[in-house]
Amino acid sequence: MLGRVLNTHQQWLCRQLSDLGYLVSRQVAIADTGPEIVQALREALARADIVITTGGLGPTTDDLTRDLIAEMLGRKLVEDPVTLAQVARFFEIRGRTMPDRARVQALVPEGSRILPNSHGTAPGLAIQSGSLRGARPSAWLILLPGPPRELRPMFREQVVPLLQREAPVPAAFVCRTLRSTGLGESLVQDKIAPWLKAQVGAGLDLGYCARPGEVDVRLAAQGPEAESVVAAAEAIVRRRLGESLFGVGEDQLETVVVRLLTERKETLALAESCTGGGIANRLTNVPGASAVFPGGWVTYSNAAKQAWLDVEGHALAEHGAVSEPVARQMAEGARRHLGSTYALSVTGIAGPDGGTAAKPVGTVFIGLAGPFETVVQKNFNPFDRETFKQVTAQQALDLLRRKIPPPSPS
Amino acid sequence: MLGRVLNTHQQWLCRQLSDLGYLVSRQVAIADTGPEIVQALREALARADIVITTGGLGPTTDDLTRDLIAEMLGRKLVEDPVTLAQVARFFEIRGRTMPDRARVQALVPEGSRILPNSHGTAPGLAIQSGSLRGARPSAWLILLPGPPRELRPMFREQVVPLLQREAPVPAAFVCRTLRSTGLGESLVQDKIAPWLKAQVGAGLDLGYCARPGEVDVRLAAQGPEAESVVAAAEAIVRRRLGESLFGVGEDQLETVVVRLLTERKETLALAESCTGGGIANRLTNVPGASAVFPGGWVTYSNAAKQAWLDVEGHALAEHGAVSEPVARQMAEGARRHLGSTYALSVTGIAGPDGGTAAKPVGTVFIGLAGPFETVVQKNFNPFDRETFKQVTAQQALDLLRRKIPPPSPS
Repeated sequence: MLGRVLNTHQQWLCRQLSDLGYLVSRQVAIADTGPEIVQALREALARADIVITTGGLGPTTDDLTRDLIAEMLGRKLVEDPVTLAQVARFFEIRGRTMPDRARVQALVPEGSRILPNSHGTAPGLAIQSGSLRGARPSAWLILLPGPPRELRPMFREQVVPLLQREAPVPAAFVCRTLRSTGLGESLVQDKIAPWLKAQVGAGLDLGYCARPGEVDVRLAAQGPEAESVVAAAEAIVRRRLGESLFGVGEDQLETVVVRLLTERKETLALAESCTGGGIANRLTNVPGASAVFPGGWVTYSNAAKQAWLDVEGHALAEHGAVSEPVARQMAEGARRHLGSTYALSVTGIAGPDGGTAAKPVGTVFIGLAGPFETVVQKNFNPFDRETFKQVTAQQALDLLRRKIPPPSPS
Repeated sequence: MLGRVLNTHQQWLCRQLSDLGYLVSRQVAIADTGPEIVQALREALARADIVITTGGLGPTTDDLTRDLIAEMLGRKLVEDPVTLAQVARFFEIRGRTMPDRARVQALVPEGSRILPNSHGTAPGLAIQSGSLRGARPSAWLILLPGPPRELRPMFREQVVPLLQREAPVPAAFVCRTLRSTGLGESLVQDKIAPWLKAQVGAGLDLGYCARPGEVDVRLAAQGPEAESVVAAAEAIVRRRLGESLFGVGEDQLETVVVRLLTERKETLALAESCTGGGIANRLTNVPGASAVFPGGWVTYSNAAKQAWLDVEGHALAEHGAVSEPVARQMAEGARRHLGSTYALSVTGIAGPDGGTAAKPVGTVFIGLAGPFETVVQKNFNPFDRETFKQVTAQQALDLLRRKIPPPSPS
């Protein structure tokens, strides 16, 4: 409530739940005070069959959730010996003494199911509301720890099976997300929506989500025909969007590129000017990137472009650093120096300053050298500085992806 | 509610409001349906003096908020000619024809104050709830557009003055955030809390916010003594945390480093292995970075370390790529090749694979070469891959910051 922390739980949990077919009706954030927590919980239990809370289970004095829920539901807090042993072991394997106050994390409301925490100390809890006045009969209350690295595996490994067993969605639910890049949201809609009328008539829930440089198409359906409706829709979307689709589900463009290069045992060099290491940073977020990415240059100055990538002084003087010839020479120089299969280069004007009438802020040239004639693409990305870098990185990775032949069917 | 978009409005608006002295009591996200919107608005107006909504003001059929609010408050929608002219002009200066449906954005509930949108088409609106049953008397309802680049300037330039005039905080409010790095949250607390007892007794609101590699200390107070209480607390925190403080307010470490280098007309080279371009990416997010950052290398392979930075083969063979001598040679090679004032190097094991008993995942060496004896720091950051990169980048930038003498007082 002070705006010090970005809430990433909402997006992550909503995504997981809606892809499983649950309808998320509301998300609420409140201050860490007893009356606020109890009021919000009572309201949520009156509205929904499943209520999930995050945070407030730790050992410090402002971790109130566990106590308040026990009191609200009229349950005693009891010490769970298995949990206590796990908390103690957490400290032991880290060579640290367990502080006294950590012991409170083994206290659980009577009748709770305990969700062990394999990445931290506070366990999660699942409790049925029972006969709480105003609550839906036996709504499930699920308490998860705050840190994402504890919450996410606990949700995937323990909460999903529990929900599917104890509170399943009413009918078979199928959901598939196809991820595209290179087309705007309205163009994606125009390309597919008219062809999906039969499926929408048969219950297809067709949704779009646009982010800078990406548009997701979400295909969902419920009921006995769900599988065939979604499969038919997917075939149509794949045919209509073709190469603009780069992945499914949680695929990211950099993950797809690393996977393609790994399968083909090929390598990539990077010569970045305006993206300033942004492409390298994304690639190296992928575990195993080192097998396909031996290295790259961030050539932010003309001198570095000349010294490291053999960009010619007269190309810089005649055409400027942001130009087709310089992008071409950067990519070819990077590929030659590293001996890689491919090399990507980017040179552009990220802003806010440095634009001219002929080359306004947002102008960018992207080069790709490889075992083919070097390609240079000119794009215009008139966004704020960080969005410019992100969209340009996306376009560069996509230029490469489209040039890598997909693996032949085995 | 489908988890396709990360809600960054919550953090941003909460931060702005709480730093102005407003108490944010709740944040709610709901589905885009009429009954949900009306119910959430009625609940919020019964609870708070100011209710801010985001999104739903655009021209498409799922932009319902404007109509629903007019209906709920019993106000007619009227076309505002000034707004209509602005919407038309938005399209005109972009050389586009205004679509018919864009016209709806000039419809406003009678009695609204219009907040012109300098970065998009839909204006914001501010309306008093009047005698709406159940609402607090004359609570303010403020409707803002969804895109951050439209919402943020509108909030800063128009909503803040309106709130300060029409719904001011009850007493003078002072808030100051000091940002530290290099110390854990509990260590920061231990270092300052015992010295701030007098200020807390005099009404200081002392808060902490920890993120990977950073701890913020927030000092706030209200009332006639607010200014002197916060000033006294700030002096104590500055004395106790000293060099661990890198900035105030919205400062980021990379912004501070670029500012220090710019003031001193000095330059930095980067030689990144395990951070994979993450440091370069952060530095180049800062406008004007090109004046102090001529370039850098991402040497993800041993061959690149040798070829580009003159790391010796026997250092790699004898000590391994993740070692003190290699970090030292990388920093010194980078500084020599670029002729920069400073050079930072990082080499470590980001994981999830590649760790050994002697050098587990999370081990990292950070080198700094400059007009002084080269420094190499060994750290252990046993986090997931992306957090490892982020924390390591933070430590590297901080190593440099502490070595740059602050500007002498003029």
